[in-house]
Amino acid sequence: MIGSGQLARMSVGPAAELGITLSVLATDPDDSAALVAAHAPVGHHTDLDRVVQFARHCDVITFDHEHVPADVLAAVAELGVPIHPDPSALQFAQDKLAMRIRLTELGIPCPRWASATNAQEVTAFLDRIGGPVVAKTPRGGYDGKGVRVIRAADDIADWLTRASEADPLLLEELVDFVRELAVLVARSPSGQAAAWPVVETVQTDSICTEVLAPAPGLSPDLAAAATEAGLRIAGELGVTGVLAVEMFEIAGPDGRNGFVVNELAMRPHNSGHWTMDGSVTGQFEQHLRAVLDLPLGAPDAREPWTAMANVLGGDLTELYSTYRHIMARDPHLKIHLYGKSVRPGRKIGHINVSGSDLDDLRERARHAADYLRGVIDE
Amino acid sequence: MIGSGQLARMSVGPAAELGITLSVLATDPDDSAALVAAHAPVGHHTDLDRVVQFARHCDVITFDHEHVPADVLAAVAELGVPIHPDPSALQFAQDKLAMRIRLTELGIPCPRWASATNAQEVTAFLDRIGGPVVAKTPRGGYDGKGVRVIRAADDIADWLTRASEADPLLLEELVDFVRELAVLVARSPSGQAAAWPVVETVQTDSICTEVLAPAPGLSPDLAAAATEAGLRIAGELGVTGVLAVEMFEIAGPDGRNGFVVNELAMRPHNSGHWTMDGSVTGQFEQHLRAVLDLPLGAPDAREPWTAMANVLGGDLTELYSTYRHIMARDPHLKIHLYGKSVRPGRKIGHINVSGSDLDDLRERARHAADYLRGVIDE
Repeated sequence: MIGSGQLARMSVGPAAELGITLSVLATDPDDSAALVAAHAPVGHHTDLDRVVQFARHCDVITFDHEHVPADVLAAVAELGVPIHPDPSALQFAQDKLAMRIRLTELGIPCPRWASATNAQEVTAFLDRIGGPVVAKTPRGGYDGKGVRVIRAADDIADWLTRASEADPLLLEELVDFVRELAVLVARSPSGQAAAWPVVETVQTDSICTEVLAPAPGLSPDLAAAATEAGLRIAGELGVTGVLAVEMFEIAGPDGRNGFVVNELAMRPHNSGHWTMDGSVTGQFEQHLRAVLDLPLGAPDAREPWTAMANVLGGDLTELYSTYRHIMARDPHLKIHLYGKSVRPGRKIGHINVSGSDLDDLRERARHAADYLRGVIDE
Repeated sequence: MIGSGQLARMSVGPAAELGITLSVLATDPDDSAALVAAHAPVGHHTDLDRVVQFARHCDVITFDHEHVPADVLAAVAELGVPIHPDPSALQFAQDKLAMRIRLTELGIPCPRWASATNAQEVTAFLDRIGGPVVAKTPRGGYDGKGVRVIRAADDIADWLTRASEADPLLLEELVDFVRELAVLVARSPSGQAAAWPVVETVQTDSICTEVLAPAPGLSPDLAAAATEAGLRIAGELGVTGVLAVEMFEIAGPDGRNGFVVNELAMRPHNSGHWTMDGSVTGQFEQHLRAVLDLPLGAPDAREPWTAMANVLGGDLTELYSTYRHIMARDPHLKIHLYGKSVRPGRKIGHINVSGSDLDDLRERARHAADYLRGVIDE
């Protein structure tokens, strides 16, 4: 696995249970996964020679993030080491404009969008939409980075100076959504696929803070349509491993809600952390099964509801006393910490709790996350 | 953690999730846990200097087995590093005769027993019981090793030549049991304790092959009495971490069943493997929480029933194709492999499956284990 953040870290336990030898290529010996993995050589994912050297010892290569450059992936492919997801699929998670073009070809609902390389094109799209729009750098953004809501071309004057025909910007309508959903599926090289229940994701300041599984009150028709879209995207794009499709739920003119696709991620994803405790097969186990072309596990929910709350770094740099408190207060919480130093706003862990009363579960997960962050003290 | 078998291996994932740095002292770099743990220095648990050197880098010492000699434990204690369970408790898991003496003092039901150093004492016990009895070497046995059913003192002539007042043998009546049960509890240094539901264990050729959780048809009174005994033993002996109390269920003269205690183990135990998937808090997580004096997690079962089947090594040395088959046949199975080479009869993994129909679950777990062992091929 190239990359050694929390996604690689949470793969360590499932790999051990499956009897799989997992190596992670770490950027630093103190990386989240490097702290707990038996094999964690250090090397940067942009260093072609280093990645190739790492890949020589692997049977299959997969990823903790989507930032490995195309030339590095091509060099690994030349070795004959299988890469999952394949670079031909991964490009659609690496490049948001490529993703929009492909999904539109497939007839998957998307926000209205355009590419732009100059102020005239930006102004034309603003006029077409008739209000503020979202501008994105197609590559390299995450958690709100590389994304701006704009009202005029001047708002991205700095980006436009660097834009070109070869490297345009992506413009999208600002979707008036009811809420955000995510569809998580896994697909193996043999083509077997499995979908977890559709979830609701709650973002705060562009960072996912809560996931409710399954999405409460979601119409069965919309759940089926969203799941079908997730499976179809995985199949048409040739995704192997876990695919997360982030969606906006929108109110339809006929009173029936629909969806448009926001983003794709081809790896275990924050919207699937609930599966570690709330599903028969967690996303980290399933990703490993998928990229190794092992038969997939059942994605069924184990309880009526699971609430997940992300723990973000706050002003408390020492977690121990708060950690003890939340464990003592609620012995049913499943607490996952990433071994990362605390920085304000940084994702340092998450809490899962499952049961039959969603409001109660949500309050308990939220309380624990807020207490660990230090924003409440009772 | 001293020792790096499968119990240490299965602690690696929970330690990572809890944000705990786990080091295992391995006897060999290819040990089950050493293959997956980030910190796995090599050294033998009987090597006093090596264990002390290892312990200097630890905040707390715990165990994967009970074979660390008393002088080694004393040297670690002198460093001031907390040992859990403490040697004063651990002695009762290391020495079956010490255990029988102490449990009898506490009034915990035990089989009739005696110590013996010569043939006369053995014959006297045989006469008292009036039938075959079980002879045990008090130290070092496991999975049926160091245990013999005897009809005459001659059957253990070899053991008697080595027995002495300082090192006697243990004789126990051969219990006419209904079935075997196990009570698994965890206790922290602060005295907090939690008990999982009582389970039925099925032994084949003195090796645990199946666990049914909870024990089907167990009377609520007997379940309560057995649990109370487990918690009382943990408290009275000062056990910290997980304690497994293996019991025989026996038919009472009044038609109400009772129990006698068979063995104690002070560490995660085969009878608790079902908790990894079947309980809110698995035994490996709970053991870590307990020995670190963190608040304990909820031991509730997550589903009405969980069946566990041990995978024993058979004639198939290459598991891959059978592994794929059982995964494809039943996507609800939770498969745990230990990374151990296959030898006939060796525990190399286990299968958990949870749900509401115990007969069905048991058949599925058993089938998968038999298929992996190579004793069935369909």
